[in-house]
Amino acid sequence: MRLIIDTDTAGDDTFSLLLAMKTPGVTLEAVTICNGNVDFDQQAENALATIEAAGKSGEVPVYLGARRPLLADWEPAQMHGADGMSGADLPRARQRPEKMHAVDALIERIMAAPGEIEMIAQAPLTNLALAVTREPRIAKALKHLWIMGGTDNSVGNVTPCAEFNFYIDPEAAAIVFRAGFDITLSTWTLTLGSSVFDAAQLARIDAHETPLTEFYRKVSATPRKVAEQRYGKAICTHPDTLTCACAIDPSIITAARDAVVRIETAGTITRGHSAIHPARLGARWPEYRENARVIESADNDAFFRMLERALTT
Amino acid sequence: MRLIIDTDTAGDDTFSLLLAMKTPGVTLEAVTICNGNVDFDQQAENALATIEAAGKSGEVPVYLGARRPLLADWEPAQMHGADGMSGADLPRARQRPEKMHAVDALIERIMAAPGEIEMIAQAPLTNLALAVTREPRIAKALKHLWIMGGTDNSVGNVTPCAEFNFYIDPEAAAIVFRAGFDITLSTWTLTLGSSVFDAAQLARIDAHETPLTEFYRKVSATPRKVAEQRYGKAICTHPDTLTCACAIDPSIITAARDAVVRIETAGTITRGHSAIHPARLGARWPEYRENARVIESADNDAFFRMLERALTT
Amino acid sequence: MRLIIDTDTAGDDTFSLLLAMKTPGVTLEAVTICNGNVDFDQQAENALATIEAAGKSGEVPVYLGARRPLLADWEPAQMHGADGMSGADLPRARQRPEKMHAVDALIERIMAAPGEIEMIAQAPLTNLALAVTREPRIAKALKHLWIMGGTDNSVGNVTPCAEFNFYIDPEAAAIVFRAGFDITLSTWTLTLGSSVFDAAQLARIDAHETPLTEFYRKVSATPRKVAEQRYGKAICTHPDTLTCACAIDPSIITAARDAVVRIETAGTITRGHSAIHPARLGARWPEYRENARVIESADNDAFFRMLERALTT
Amino acid sequence: MRLIIDTDTAGDDTFSLLLAMKTPGVTLEAVTICNGNVDFDQQAENALATIEAAGKSGEVPVYLGARRPLLADWEPAQMHGADGMSGADLPRARQRPEKMHAVDALIERIMAAPGEIEMIAQAPLTNLALAVTREPRIAKALKHLWIMGGTDNSVGNVTPCAEFNFYIDPEAAAIVFRAGFDITLSTWTLTLGSSVFDAAQLARIDAHETPLTEFYRKVSATPRKVAEQRYGKAICTHPDTLTCACAIDPSIITAARDAVVRIETAGTITRGHSAIHPARLGARWPEYRENARVIESADNDAFFRMLERALTT
Ligand SMILES: [Ca+2]
Ligand SMILES: [Ca+2]
Ligand SMILES: [Ca+2]
Ligand SMILES: [Ca+2]
Repeated sequence: MRLIIDTDTAGDDTFSLLLAMKTPGVTLEAVTICNGNVDFDQQAENALATIEAAGKSGEVPVYLGARRPLLADWEPAQMHGADGMSGADLPRARQRPEKMHAVDALIERIMAAPGEIEMIAQAPLTNLALAVTREPRIAKALKHLWIMGGTDNSVGNVTPCAEFNFYIDPEAAAIVFRAGFDITLSTWTLTLGSSVFDAAQLARIDAHETPLTEFYRKVSATPRKVAEQRYGKAICTHPDTLTCACAIDPSIITAARDAVVRIETAGTITRGHSAIHPARLGARWPEYRENARVIESADNDAFFRMLERALTT
Repeated sequence: MRLIIDTDTAGDDTFSLLLAMKTPGVTLEAVTICNGNVDFDQQAENALATIEAAGKSGEVPVYLGARRPLLADWEPAQMHGADGMSGADLPRARQRPEKMHAVDALIERIMAAPGEIEMIAQAPLTNLALAVTREPRIAKALKHLWIMGGTDNSVGNVTPCAEFNFYIDPEAAAIVFRAGFDITLSTWTLTLGSSVFDAAQLARIDAHETPLTEFYRKVSATPRKVAEQRYGKAICTHPDTLTCACAIDPSIITAARDAVVRIETAGTITRGHSAIHPARLGARWPEYRENARVIESADNDAFFRMLERALTT
Repeated sequence: MRLIIDTDTAGDDTFSLLLAMKTPGVTLEAVTICNGNVDFDQQAENALATIEAAGKSGEVPVYLGARRPLLADWEPAQMHGADGMSGADLPRARQRPEKMHAVDALIERIMAAPGEIEMIAQAPLTNLALAVTREPRIAKALKHLWIMGGTDNSVGNVTPCAEFNFYIDPEAAAIVFRAGFDITLSTWTLTLGSSVFDAAQLARIDAHETPLTEFYRKVSATPRKVAEQRYGKAICTHPDTLTCACAIDPSIITAARDAVVRIETAGTITRGHSAIHPARLGARWPEYRENARVIESADNDAFFRMLERALTT
Repeated sequence: MRLIIDTDTAGDDTFSLLLAMKTPGVTLEAVTICNGNVDFDQQAENALATIEAAGKSGEVPVYLGARRPLLADWEPAQMHGADGMSGADLPRARQRPEKMHAVDALIERIMAAPGEIEMIAQAPLTNLALAVTREPRIAKALKHLWIMGGTDNSVGNVTPCAEFNFYIDPEAAAIVFRAGFDITLSTWTLTLGSSVFDAAQLARIDAHETPLTEFYRKVSATPRKVAEQRYGKAICTHPDTLTCACAIDPSIITAARDAVVRIETAGTITRGHSAIHPARLGARWPEYRENARVIESADNDAFFRMLERALTT
């Protein structure tokens, strides 16, 4: 598969990149950086360092996109450490970002190969919103759009009603969900349900002691430590990597449903909320049309094995 | 039990009143009328006619409350016919409404018997919001508050995000849910899941041919006909009556959970939405405290038998 | 004139009460306390102490109203000191608050003398909103409603778009402005333009050394000191007292216009904003009807003399 | 001066283009089309036909931009007739739109000549918001940005609180006003105060009977007729043309002030409202910084002569 990943590279974002680069049959054609988890330039360095760690230096161009949300004030995510890499202190990559803007790169690449490229959006949706507003035809030219964001009628991670990616740029999310893309949504609710590695799984990865399992161990150190302090046992969540795994091998999706997904941009308690309705809302609200497939559960074990394989071969 | 029902009396509201009046051990001490389903004065007549039909004329005082929502523009509900009674054309009741305002009656009655009275709020919450803002102590003096309204992470009946009672007066609902009442919430989601009588059940009620089953047949005629046209078979939903049944006999509740319930008053798509979160939102949001128990399912058969008994004895 | 004042008694609120009590021809029939400037019970004490200072102990009943806004979170005003009285440390008044709730008192008194009573609302409008929602007929039964609040197409004092009284309870303000009262609005813009006493005026009041000019000197000490530090000269603003003066003697109003006044309750930057439009918005927006007269300027000198007289006789 | 005009070309927009093309010393380097007054493609044809009418076919490239607002639903303006040209039925221009997107053209042209180009934004601000979000450096590279939109503490033309250009895409307007451009704002309030031609002025233009005065007569026919029916005399307003005139010759500005301008994107009554505050909001709100100069009045006669000259030479 031909793949582009839009990412606010920090922590789990990097494992998603690794999974895409190390899985046979997947060509990661470009990485675009969007505002999100940590300092924008740090995110670009994290992406470049991850490409270098995967032995792909110079093979995967990295494009810089929107440094801030459309309207909202940017605020950093928690749990990633200052560098978003648990202080892994990776060497500065030789590869440098491209000159072309991420929005232009997205439009050019998608329009150049209509129906061929899939995209994983694992950051706030600013870049994609700008691209599709500037060139609405990418919505149909993109083969499939895998989005990590929102909640599925459950609790968020920034406010009780909202998940980070959609909360940081709700206007962008609202634009993307009505633009006509063929979307599969991987929510924070799915992250909690199907993406968590427990202590035994983490130990099994660590035991490999390959360069990439070392990379994984270092970069996941902060969330693992926080979990250990909070719950008495190390765990690690993988919102972006599970999304990538589903894109690479949809057979690990064990339950999904078609839905109408809308994003609240205002509201006193619901800003950034993803309202997920049944696909058929019936005669009463004909304006709400099915616009996404929502993943409800995935095979945690198959996901684990896919990532383990990527980190060890 | 000592009971007050706040109601926008139309259709199913009347069956809830009948259930309360005809079930042994329940004393319906007062009925208060709130803006909602149909024309305000028609609602008062509907309540009075229902009391007369139950043979309780003069025994249950009816108080008139807020004729419109706090801030929102009132709009009538659908599916009830012009009179809210499927054109049942009941005789005008001899009993007339009380002079005292519903808000004053609520405060006076609840404060006069702290810890003894339970209340069913089966209409928009304007009256209750006014009462508790005027006299905050009723929140603790009321033994229990049973509210019909909202959705439980599912689709609404006015907008995809909102149910009628909360949509009509979201500000009132927001006030009531943070006032400190001991609340059990019966949602539209529960209504669809546990309150529906199918054609066989409806036929069984009709077959009794008592005055009150005749009342039921007439008043439910419109929704039954609509369902027949739409789905090919008559069904009837009972949001308010099921709420009343749960209040009278909590053992028919088969699943419930404690929760944090908040009401959105703004929002482009979520006005009137009931955000229902887990009871423990953890260290991140200490300001969101458990404030309601949400009924997830009820025993439809037990509910049916309770109402059947009320209509036939 | 027969007058009721609704007040969040602190600082300038007290001078308004004094002006009403000490001006011949004015009967201050009741004072109602609303949430606002400082701690609610402190406000009640401030009102009672002011009545005592005016030599009217036992003659002007004080009713306690809503301790918090309808929906908003209460926050104290600035510039009043902890007690709202510049630490004047007045003796505790002998008179105590009435048992009846302010909302009930407003309804009872206004309905008992239709067309006879005028009211000054110099606090957030919670009490009045509750009263008129509970008894809509007071809107026409009140002879005239003088409201201090909002801005007149100029800058606010809590946010650039909003003044304190309307910002603290925007929902209440919205309710009052559409309830049908005969309203004259005295804005923060007017306060800045016409109510300010300069150092010379303040010195002239101080020079009298009567008990009430001493009261004035003590209670206005904090804002005077702040102004001196900030601008190098003492000044004092009188939003509430000027409103009271206009009510007592409308001839001090030098310019006013009829208008459509609406209150924004949502908005990212405009919550609590008073949108003031021309009285005739024309064919395009027939739903916006003239609902208030807005005072544009008042005779500062006449106002000063009116207050000086009240404090010295 | 080197000039780019972003326009939703209909009615008065065309006179602004003519003024720029026919005034000596002005080089209209590009026209960009934005969603707004009428059908998007019609607007492009109107711009091309205007260029042809000015005898500049092939000299002023026309770039197509955003066909719809960022988030809002587009709705057409009133008073322009179906074609936005009062049915003038101009011949289809030979010149065709450029292939490059307006957003790309804006970025490329502005970044290629930093400090040299001025821009008139006389449409909703979607194009400019997309451009500056994609390339934030254009804010400082553009010499000056003249914006027609908003109201200056007065009544709007779509809602009482909002003017068309800002109402149609409030999110875009909010983005542009915080992007760091050097902005002069020409409001609807200024339009009503300084841009109106009365019947005598209109007659004087008509009397010239040049091709461009004929163009003016035809294209302004609908608003003139409407005014005649409504007020008994023909008048014509020139929001965009006056803005262009001020840009070309700032000496016709007779009053202006520095200000903090913010755009409301939410709100129940204020969506699209331009809150215009004093330039110095003081210590209380340090986050609100002066970001625009607001024109308060212009010399109507000088403006008339400037346009008359452009249409007759
Ligand atoms: Ca991410
Ligand atoms: Ca009901
Ligand atoms: Ca006050
Ligand atoms: Ca225009």
